[in-house]
Amino acid sequence: MYAVIMAGGSGTRFWPLSRRDRPKQFLAIGTERPLLAETAARLAPLVPLERVMVVAGERHAAPIRELLPDLPADNLVIEPCARNTAPCIGLAAALLARRDPHAVMAVLPADHHIGDPARFRTLMAAAGARARAGEIVTLGIRPTRPETGYGYIHYDRADTVDVDGVEVCRVERFVEKPPRDVAEKYLASGRYLWNSGMFFFTARRILEDIGRFLPAMRAHLDAIAAAVGTDAYPETLAREFAAMESVSIDYGVMEHAERVRVVPAAFGWNDVGHWAALADFAEADDAGNVVRGPALTIDSRDSIVHSDGPTVALVGCEDLVVVVTGDAVLVCPRDRAQDVRRVVDKLKARGREDLL
Amino acid sequence: MYAVIMAGGSGTRFWPLSRRDRPKQFLAIGTERPLLAETAARLAPLVPLERVMVVAGERHAAPIRELLPDLPADNLVIEPCARNTAPCIGLAAALLARRDPHAVMAVLPADHHIGDPARFRTLMAAAGARARAGEIVTLGIRPTRPETGYGYIHYDRADTVDVDGVEVCRVERFVEKPPRDVAEKYLASGRYLWNSGMFFFTARRILEDIGRFLPAMRAHLDAIAAAVGTDAYPETLAREFAAMESVSIDYGVMEHAERVRVVPAAFGWNDVGHWAALADFAEADDAGNVVRGPALTIDSRDSIVHSDGPTVALVGCEDLVVVVTGDAVLVCPRDRAQDVRRVVDKLKARGREDLL
Repeated sequence: MYAVIMAGGSGTRFWPLSRRDRPKQFLAIGTERPLLAETAARLAPLVPLERVMVVAGERHAAPIRELLPDLPADNLVIEPCARNTAPCIGLAAALLARRDPHAVMAVLPADHHIGDPARFRTLMAAAGARARAGEIVTLGIRPTRPETGYGYIHYDRADTVDVDGVEVCRVERFVEKPPRDVAEKYLASGRYLWNSGMFFFTARRILEDIGRFLPAMRAHLDAIAAAVGTDAYPETLAREFAAMESVSIDYGVMEHAERVRVVPAAFGWNDVGHWAALADFAEADDAGNVVRGPALTIDSRDSIVHSDGPTVALVGCEDLVVVVTGDAVLVCPRDRAQDVRRVVDKLKARGREDLL
Repeated sequence: MYAVIMAGGSGTRFWPLSRRDRPKQFLAIGTERPLLAETAARLAPLVPLERVMVVAGERHAAPIRELLPDLPADNLVIEPCARNTAPCIGLAAALLARRDPHAVMAVLPADHHIGDPARFRTLMAAAGARARAGEIVTLGIRPTRPETGYGYIHYDRADTVDVDGVEVCRVERFVEKPPRDVAEKYLASGRYLWNSGMFFFTARRILEDIGRFLPAMRAHLDAIAAAVGTDAYPETLAREFAAMESVSIDYGVMEHAERVRVVPAAFGWNDVGHWAALADFAEADDAGNVVRGPALTIDSRDSIVHSDGPTVALVGCEDLVVVVTGDAVLVCPRDRAQDVRRVVDKLKARGREDLL
């Protein structure tokens, strides 16, 4: 099994810690190591770095090499420009297919938190086994709340196969982020899982499906694959990649594909989407405060404090996010953590390049 | 008229901006200049620096000289140790009496905000005229809310003299900080003023009253006065000052004194007791935010933001105090600003000398 780690994100919701040159996958957010390093370490017993491919933009090549010094140079794939997940996965598949068309690819985001890495690897192995047989397999997380920030997977427990004790169920359909009332129904029904964005398939299978549902993209990928190892490669890659439609693998392929299965997973999972998400997995003190860095909390609870250096004192605060770096400070209520991107928008509008 | 500016405060409620070596009188808090410089500038048209005496501890001698470079060297009086206002005022009076026993002293805290300096000087002149005649005169502020953080002055409008169009009323009594319900009655009655801590008297008059109500203190002051100009002075000052009782002028003298008058003042006044006090006098934006230093406010209102450098972003915040220095950050709700001293207590307990 190979792993393809998608490390191209440029998330702005972890400002001021995250910056253009150091998005969240390169940060330790509620974790010991940066999220990308956590992701690679989690895989290591099952997929060593020799079989890990990291896909990202040129801007992030240096921090990736620094974070994963043992990653073979050829395994770092640079996207010539920012597209969505379908071109990213298609490129990885096209390159991998030249090595081994039957290679099973585990496609994984670089920046998710997973509570039980051993269980995660067990489920990966089961998903990989079905993928090897030609299926598309995804990891679906059992929902614990009516979350409106994730896509869902409607699955059929009646159509389940057992792989070494792991249930692998048939997917009925992928559904996009639902409104609150719908999310509540999904949760109550027990027939929906969160779409984790983690997929397993052979390079051949995903290229076939891209050819079927996104034929233009397939043509661009074929042109890239044909140029590998020639002098024309860099130019071909730049041209063909830029020409591809910016579409997600979910929307472009998964929603139309056949023979798609899901492995229901019950380990703690979090896509670390914003500061408030830390409350779901990072260790808290007795008052529910998640604190990283030097801080004093007085009569304060359920708050998230992160400091790169300055001592933070919270007095009488509740449900607050406070993030401190050398040049910037963010303060917002936990339930407004999604809006941190508006700070970045405003800084952009003011030309504050130094803070982006 | 002479002015005696009491600059010995070591207030901790403006942490992290205020530190042991830089208490609030040396800080610009909601003002252009540091509060001590504002105080001196406010006096200048009536009392030039030649007749201003500043009393403070040794630790603060250097910042005072820096802030008031034109203050004559002899006019900076160093308290050998921290005592309360009665020893401080007594020392100033003892020294001044040697120059001129009939000198009128205006005793003023270094760190108050006054909204209308011209009106303030008019009232000072009137208070000074009655002081010259041997009375003790205080400035009383017309209360605008049932404040429980100030002492009050019960006064008698029936016994009023007019000094150049300024009402100077007889004081019935001084009362200490009242509970809320009592403060509400005081406010409703119209017969109470806030005790501003600003007093006017001749050096002779206050020394007489100290002799009457605090005879031991008077003896120490006489010993100090007798040593002025001799080699024994520094040692005498240190010994006698340390031996004095730590008592406030209000409690030690004012509450017992006779022939005490008050000038009711209606200008904006604030003792700048904690961060939330800025809301009462500092300029706010349309959303009610008082901002000093680089900051972005998004969907935020009625908050107080002070930054020494780092850019502060507030998203969705209300009624919050956020103060940022290079090495520390404070976040607390406005109504908890009084408790900032608890941060300092905790830092002390942890031996964080660097942050005190």
